[in-house]
Amino acid sequence: MIGLLGSNGYVGTTFRLLFDRLQIPWMPVPRSELYDARRLAAAFKHADVSCVINCAGFTGKPNVDACELQKTECLLGNGVLPGIIREVCEALDIPWGHVSTGCIFTGRRGDGHGFTEADPPNFSFRQDNCSFYSGAKALGEEVLVGAKRCYVWRLRIPLENTSSPRNYLQKLLSYDTLLEAENSLSQLQEFVQACYDSFRLEIPYGTYNVTNPGSVWTSDVVELIKKSGVSQKNFKYFHDESQFMQLAAKTPRSNCVLDSSKAIDAGLTLSPVIEAIEKMLGSWKG
Amino acid sequence: MIGLLGSNGYVGTTFRLLFDRLQIPWMPVPRSELYDARRLAAAFKHADVSCVINCAGFTGKPNVDACELQKTECLLGNGVLPGIIREVCEALDIPWGHVSTGCIFTGRRGDGHGFTEADPPNFSFRQDNCSFYSGAKALGEEVLVGAKRCYVWRLRIPLENTSSPRNYLQKLLSYDTLLEAENSLSQLQEFVQACYDSFRLEIPYGTYNVTNPGSVWTSDVVELIKKSGVSQKNFKYFHDESQFMQLAAKTPRSNCVLDSSKAIDAGLTLSPVIEAIEKMLGSWKG
Repeated sequence: MIGLLGSNGYVGTTFRLLFDRLQIPWMPVPRSELYDARRLAAAFKHADVSCVINCAGFTGKPNVDACELQKTECLLGNGVLPGIIREVCEALDIPWGHVSTGCIFTGRRGDGHGFTEADPPNFSFRQDNCSFYSGAKALGEEVLVGAKRCYVWRLRIPLENTSSPRNYLQKLLSYDTLLEAENSLSQLQEFVQACYDSFRLEIPYGTYNVTNPGSVWTSDVVELIKKSGVSQKNFKYFHDESQFMQLAAKTPRSNCVLDSSKAIDAGLTLSPVIEAIEKMLGSWKG
Repeated sequence: MIGLLGSNGYVGTTFRLLFDRLQIPWMPVPRSELYDARRLAAAFKHADVSCVINCAGFTGKPNVDACELQKTECLLGNGVLPGIIREVCEALDIPWGHVSTGCIFTGRRGDGHGFTEADPPNFSFRQDNCSFYSGAKALGEEVLVGAKRCYVWRLRIPLENTSSPRNYLQKLLSYDTLLEAENSLSQLQEFVQACYDSFRLEIPYGTYNVTNPGSVWTSDVVELIKKSGVSQKNFKYFHDESQFMQLAAKTPRSNCVLDSSKAIDAGLTLSPVIEAIEKMLGSWKG
């Protein structure tokens, strides 16, 4: 039995679909019990949970700008909650995993490489350059330092083949104007499979950048969209990031390249990013 | 009826003594209700609370180093809780006050002045130079930006005339070796009276450095202790802050000078710091 926190969210729904397909039993945890360590522990014990996945968090609607106006919820859901779950799982000696984010990085490493799990976040409160969301998420990783039997899976810009407003490809299709930027991405179904496989394959506990190998520029993805025939829209771009910040965003966005070789070397399956995008566009259900 | 959160803590106990002395009715809020906005609101409504004082927080025992090992509780109690209380008090339109700290500053301002309420914290996650405690407390002020009918009272190194281990004078008496540093201080009974007076005198809502005017070096206080006859101990000092960090502390400490003229100008009563120390030593009950 897998305890699933945040099962009604975007990522949680994808986990549910995976578990239902594989006929793996899972139990949801009501939002009202999330922040109460005693009730959480009782629920896990009662259901004899063998592992826990946390995909609960506060991302802001319609986007991360909303976190600037809901700082308390953002800090509670992203900074504090992982620590509460850690406390409960360590007390019960249950292995568990936390869906973190690559949004705690910006750009590439000084040497041109993507960021590895050994690099400290550079888009965080400690750098004073970030959104409240990214700052809170980075604190959520800080509270997990030294956690026992714990995976930290970093998701980065989820994409799939549906018209969900949270799907990166759908976002590109619906935005009036795009920001040209380089990013690593996470194909969502591969991401949740990789998280599940972490337990199944018993890979070492710790932090993993669960992103599809490689990186893409916005315009690369636009070319793939056009080539696929999904849209022939005349995509427009902001002149630069400062115009984007002026016209479209209230708080800084992360754009970053992550190195996912630790995940790959551990045996998790993540297809190269271009291949993953082409596959989603080829099976587009938008 | 005053709603008092954290009534069993060091500062909360001092509030209770004040209210009992003035025969002002107050109600405690059980720790189990603190983080539940709905239960908190119900408790305030049920008791017809006219104002709320939050002196709940997580300071770490025996000292702030403990917060490095209890990051979740620290972030919840200091960063998130003020935001939950804000939400409840704004919904019920109740005026309230939050006991914050001067520990979100270090040193003096570049121009040599003490920090005013207009200066941003310089000992915080955003400066990446602080303890987890100070970082969380600074976030607790961030979540209150724009709060309605809200006082933020900054306490800084409480002192009184008892042998409480939280009392600065008692700390100096009990430590083997002292760090020479310049600080503003808050005489605790004057502090709680000033907080209460904020409501009573209806001073403008906002942030106040509730510290005794002026500042003192550790050695100044030691001289006052010796002069008072409270102790003739041979006080020893660390060579410098780096020796202190090496031998006695796990996380950086704030030492800072705050300007309390906004509080004084608003009509709050705070005696000059040397006078406040002499009075406590003159009535020492240790």
